[in-house]
Amino acid sequence: MDKNIDQLCVDTIRMLALDTVQKATSGHPGMPLGAAPMAYTLFGREMRYNPENPRWFNRDRFLLSAGHGSALLYALLHLFGFEQMTLQELKRFRQWESATPGHPEYEPDYGVETTTGPLGQGFATGIGVAIAEANLAARYNRRGYNIIDHYTYAIVSDGDLMEGVASEGASLAGHLKLGKLIYLYDDNKISLSGETLIAFTEDVRKRFESYGWQVIQVEDGNDLAALYAAVEEAKGDTHHPSLVMVSTHIGYGTPVQDTFEAHGNPLKAEQLAETKKFYGWPPDQPFHIPEEALSHFRKRVKEGKKAENAWQELFQEYSNAHPSEARELSGMMEGSLPEGWDEGLPVFDPDPKGVATRKAGGQVLNALAGNIPSLVGGSADLDPSTNTALKGMGSFQPEGQCPAECQGLVDGPLDYRGRNIAFGVREHTMAAIMNGVALHGGLIPFGATFFVFSDYLKPSLRIGCISRCHNVYVFTHDSVGVGEDGPTHQPVEHLAALRAVPRLTVIRPADANETREAWKLALLRRGGPTALVLSRQNVPIFDRTQYSGAEGISRGGYVMAEASEGEAELIILATGSEVHLALEAHRLLNDEGIRVRVVNLASWEIFEEQDEEYKNMVLPPTLTRRVSIEAGATLGWHKYVGVSGEAIGIDRFGASAPGGEALANLGISVDNLVSRAK
Amino acid sequence: MDKNIDQLCVDTIRMLALDTVQKATSGHPGMPLGAAPMAYTLFGREMRYNPENPRWFNRDRFLLSAGHGSALLYALLHLFGFEQMTLQELKRFRQWESATPGHPEYEPDYGVETTTGPLGQGFATGIGVAIAEANLAARYNRRGYNIIDHYTYAIVSDGDLMEGVASEGASLAGHLKLGKLIYLYDDNKISLSGETLIAFTEDVRKRFESYGWQVIQVEDGNDLAALYAAVEEAKGDTHHPSLVMVSTHIGYGTPVQDTFEAHGNPLKAEQLAETKKFYGWPPDQPFHIPEEALSHFRKRVKEGKKAENAWQELFQEYSNAHPSEARELSGMMEGSLPEGWDEGLPVFDPDPKGVATRKAGGQVLNALAGNIPSLVGGSADLDPSTNTALKGMGSFQPEGQCPAECQGLVDGPLDYRGRNIAFGVREHTMAAIMNGVALHGGLIPFGATFFVFSDYLKPSLRIGCISRCHNVYVFTHDSVGVGEDGPTHQPVEHLAALRAVPRLTVIRPADANETREAWKLALLRRGGPTALVLSRQNVPIFDRTQYSGAEGISRGGYVMAEASEGEAELIILATGSEVHLALEAHRLLNDEGIRVRVVNLASWEIFEEQDEEYKNMVLPPTLTRRVSIEAGATLGWHKYVGVSGEAIGIDRFGASAPGGEALANLGISVDNLVSRAK
Repeated sequence: MDKNIDQLCVDTIRMLALDTVQKATSGHPGMPLGAAPMAYTLFGREMRYNPENPRWFNRDRFLLSAGHGSALLYALLHLFGFEQMTLQELKRFRQWESATPGHPEYEPDYGVETTTGPLGQGFATGIGVAIAEANLAARYNRRGYNIIDHYTYAIVSDGDLMEGVASEGASLAGHLKLGKLIYLYDDNKISLSGETLIAFTEDVRKRFESYGWQVIQVEDGNDLAALYAAVEEAKGDTHHPSLVMVSTHIGYGTPVQDTFEAHGNPLKAEQLAETKKFYGWPPDQPFHIPEEALSHFRKRVKEGKKAENAWQELFQEYSNAHPSEARELSGMMEGSLPEGWDEGLPVFDPDPKGVATRKAGGQVLNALAGNIPSLVGGSADLDPSTNTALKGMGSFQPEGQCPAECQGLVDGPLDYRGRNIAFGVREHTMAAIMNGVALHGGLIPFGATFFVFSDYLKPSLRIGCISRCHNVYVFTHDSVGVGEDGPTHQPVEHLAALRAVPRLTVIRPADANETREAWKLALLRRGGPTALVLSRQNVPIFDRTQYSGAEGISRGGYVMAEASEGEAELIILATGSEVHLALEAHRLLNDEGIRVRVVNLASWEIFEEQDEEYKNMVLPPTLTRRVSIEAGATLGWHKYVGVSGEAIGIDRFGASAPGGEALANLGISVDNLVSRAK
Repeated sequence: MDKNIDQLCVDTIRMLALDTVQKATSGHPGMPLGAAPMAYTLFGREMRYNPENPRWFNRDRFLLSAGHGSALLYALLHLFGFEQMTLQELKRFRQWESATPGHPEYEPDYGVETTTGPLGQGFATGIGVAIAEANLAARYNRRGYNIIDHYTYAIVSDGDLMEGVASEGASLAGHLKLGKLIYLYDDNKISLSGETLIAFTEDVRKRFESYGWQVIQVEDGNDLAALYAAVEEAKGDTHHPSLVMVSTHIGYGTPVQDTFEAHGNPLKAEQLAETKKFYGWPPDQPFHIPEEALSHFRKRVKEGKKAENAWQELFQEYSNAHPSEARELSGMMEGSLPEGWDEGLPVFDPDPKGVATRKAGGQVLNALAGNIPSLVGGSADLDPSTNTALKGMGSFQPEGQCPAECQGLVDGPLDYRGRNIAFGVREHTMAAIMNGVALHGGLIPFGATFFVFSDYLKPSLRIGCISRCHNVYVFTHDSVGVGEDGPTHQPVEHLAALRAVPRLTVIRPADANETREAWKLALLRRGGPTALVLSRQNVPIFDRTQYSGAEGISRGGYVMAEASEGEAELIILATGSEVHLALEAHRLLNDEGIRVRVVNLASWEIFEEQDEEYKNMVLPPTLTRRVSIEAGATLGWHKYVGVSGEAIGIDRFGASAPGGEALANLGISVDNLVSRAK
């Protein structure tokens, strides 16, 4: 070998990634071959991390937004010494239950920081990671103790830059002046179906400058010195996020270099042979790793350990100097809720006029935020409507940028200490940023918008579910009860859509007190996000001496009212704002001697988790006369009402009219419920 | 009055819109007050349209992307003489079944060109309108006969520009050099929750220049001369879309001018009085329209009629000179399918190995496109995978921009005549553009992506459903059968999500011949879009001498195989790629003497449209032993299998593994079906 050691390492990454794809006979060889030098620059020189403890809290984060290049990531992690990313796992690329799925899936023990593949997601998620870093640093660092102090890197592709979620995020990141966010753009001019010339000819540099980013050009993506200099320059500007545009060659060194054929399919045998020859690699030794290269890669293990040790010492000193901050931050880093986190939450008195659950939710959220320092979030420009402003907790803004008028409904610091995040009218990137905040750790993000706009953020919500992020979505304005804003603003199909998403818990509380309980569940439940679905309109606050307690929703569904005498002959099921209709029907029917039970099925997912005994107690299999009422699509309800039961719902678009009128005209009324129950 | 007539007209629009909101005690007064001058410039001077025939094909189109300003649109339409937009309807603003819903809903007879409200949608939809115009013009205009020749205008807001769908669209529109697309940006620095300073500080001019737009500034949004000059300048550049940035004052003339309080709530009584005073308007005459203003507005009626008449004459001459083009175009403008549109479609021979329905779909689509000149479309950079390239039909590109390599998988013209649209990796704007193409008329758009990415475009799909657009979504890679690409690329919850959407028809054909029938249904069904859900993997092509014919899916569900002797005692229901598993289980169970019927439930929506007799024939109510199998979420299936039935499906995320293995490991197999059927 007469190559220098860095070049040898770069080529080792390339050949290992290539062999990984070839072994699977499935995957994307083109991107790793083109982007290996920039990846090596990051993992080999720039980034601070400890392969022996991939979860070290203050590590630099790396996101592979171009997730189809997963073989590159796995090769890097193996070579740089992440122990769980074994060579065996690389050989099981894209196989059942391997550590090396086709696209990266969040698994911090392997060193995989986020789930990517759907384009644009990694780009926007990284912004959330950087926001978490900036917020924690501003709140917890003290003079001489930069406890939280790391960079967030990503490799992004043409496809990422074309996606709207990335545009939204880029605009916000520029506004927020996230100087420690550094993205390397793998600018190879090729996408899945051909040259980017066919659909993507914008001036990327100018576009990112318009957002307030620093843009740096690297003319030759194989030039390691230039790559290093560019990343150093990016680091030098601490007031702007950086986009390093790197001109690369997809499938570099293969006979299909610079064509879309290099993108998404393994090489043919003769192409592989030619490529190995180009790199001077042994033709018949797949997964060959030169000793010299390996020992060079593994030097980073020692360096990483040293870096973490130094940080641990610093944290120890910080704990002595600032014990209360250290204690609080430690709890947050562990992801635990502080003692007393659910104390002093509002208790709402019975009130037939009642209150909108969005409003009750706002009060509960504010009380919780006072108890739980990790809770941060905001809305997609809807604070006055979603009631999600955290009063007195400031706005997450670059220091000195915003005048006092910027505070909107909040008070408090107008700098990175602010716990309210103004996402702008950008639902999609909001949800991706929530993923990033949650994955960074230390913070629990919430994000609010109108329920109908859950559509805008669904792709990121889905990634949040795959990654088991502890996110709380606050979806207000939850049915045609929205009223005059009309069908474009009235969710109909959205409950069904979200109930079908794995790992997501959907809770639609019926009154103010259930809203409190729902928020508690959202904070307690791990393993996936929770969506709180709240009403725009007032709903009665129930008298719980008359009905079962609001904490019943912790089992997902519960018997809220029983037949006044004897065994029930009919079950009415309802959720959210329709529960009070069910209870009113219950009263009327009982008066007529019809024995009715009312079941509040606030969360199907939680109910399904209960044991059979409980479920059969709530919904006795022998009691087959059932009616459900919910102001949304009936899809899914027959699981609970049966083929012979009746599901009252709305299987059409709503209409612009005052909310009560819209509901009544669409059959969501006590009258209709009573007549159909009979 | 000492105002000049134009100013009087502008103020008439303002006061009429304001009274409209006040009467409803609901709505958005701020935007109409700020944007009335630019709207008047368009409707009063620039635009060509005929209020007496709002459907005139060659009219200029106007889209109010800032749909919350609907009162402005309704006031304009009334004042400029659109007969169905009566004063009475304005007084019924936001009331049940009025012509004036809270946000505009597509209704061409009223002059409402599209459904808006969810931000960004109108912006991106307009691009589709402009694409339709450019494509039809390039294909059908002849020297001296500019039959298709109109502009597309929109008023867009801060919120529109923040949304990702608009960014995607703006980049594509710049690439496509849509010179007849002219957007006026109502730049008022205020959004729902406060000043845009809080989240939106990008350099909008520079951003749009980076996309290849012409950007023009109007410093004073009340300056009619400047507005006119700006729009004229925009028209002058025929090679770039134009963004006219107009500095305005939200709630102009009210005491809450320039604050977010002017955005979304009616004025208080004293604020209203002050405002009327500011404009010199009679304080106690709501809906006051000065005679002088009205007669000035209504001059446009005569002008519009004249313009249409001239066009009708031109079209008559064109018909004489170019009879075949005129005949073809006339049919397209009417929205009818040409005679013989379904002739010569591929018929697929039985084949146990079979073919992927995406691949069969590509063949059918190409045959249809040969018969139906109105069919245009493309994919979000996935042509090689979705099989949706129209061979020989060119790529819709600005003339002279793209070298031959741009053609990807197609041949044919590389200019606006191209019928393949390269959307780039931009699913969301693709779907919004489809809406625009469909609403323009003359063309039937299709758009393709992986089924899992239907999430990315859902908000526009929903608008397409509200607007009853004749769109065809081609969603390939329809289950965990996708295989190695893993859970990020494997749809699970998407069938349930789309089945819940009103007015959308979802069809999941089981083999190549059903795919042909599904495409035919997609073209025949009006009143809403159709989604074709197609497999990545091969599925057998059934021998229809052995099973019922593929045209059975025209009833949504049909009995595909009966018990070999006697009456069935069990029904197996399946869709798409699981139908062949059901048929195999049918064979095995029949061999064991278990009498099984197989029902193919390819489209739930179409099945539900059938009469009760047919439905009961397919699914006899007395036959309650039922098992369904579908490689997706089980949500919704209990409507057909009942509480006692069994729904086999996948209620978790998939996994990266070869497709067959992923399916089998997740229980989608003949073995599992047989054992659970028993």
